[in-house]
Amino acid sequence: MFIAMNRFKVARGREAEFEEIWRGRKTRLDEMEGFTGFQLLRGPEREDHTLYASHSTWTNRELFTAWTKSEQFRDSHRNAGGAKGLYLGPPDFEGFEAVITEQASSPPRREDAP
Amino acid sequence: MFIAMNRFKVARGREAEFEEIWRGRKTRLDEMEGFTGFQLLRGPEREDHTLYASHSTWTNRELFTAWTKSEQFRDSHRNAGGAKGLYLGPPDFEGFEAVITEQASSPPRREDAP
Repeated sequence: MFIAMNRFKVARGREAEFEEIWRGRKTRLDEMEGFTGFQLLRGPEREDHTLYASHSTWTNRELFTAWTKSEQFRDSHRNAGGAKGLYLGPPDFEGFEAVITEQASSPPRREDAP
Repeated sequence: MFIAMNRFKVARGREAEFEEIWRGRKTRLDEMEGFTGFQLLRGPEREDHTLYASHSTWTNRELFTAWTKSEQFRDSHRNAGGAKGLYLGPPDFEGFEAVITEQASSPPRREDAP
């Protein structure tokens, strides 16, 4: 299992605008082999920004890399910028390989958020 | 959905030792309401360390917080330290709320890693 995260420092007060950009995106991730899930995550609030992370899960790193070279990737990153002052610095990519995995044995599938 | 991550800077050359500590741990996460999954993740190699992250998923933040106050949490963090020089600095906790979620529609469940 591979997790791809891109960390975004969003200027305080611009959070709704940032989330709106993502809601309007057509990721086309669902067309990709090896894609298992995507979340846009809102993280901790820091002094001058709120940390967000895009978080996608893949069966392995190779299939993630194939996506980054695909037409679907280029499509979904068109107009991905956002207005001036939205970000404090460029996004910071981090790729992670799972070395230990535990699943809940009786999955409490009572997701109260979509 | 809530994701709890703790980021560890592990000194270069000490990665196997760090992973061994985690393999030997009894997390008891499976006993907790709202717990859905755990991974220990190996991230990018930096100049003087390799980034690791513990990554657990929960139905919501409240159930994660309940875990941090539980007997199971105290148990699993007993002897969690590790030998001198293993870490470059203290772990860095980040909690994330999912604001957008997409699942693969026909899950390609061909996990080639456990």
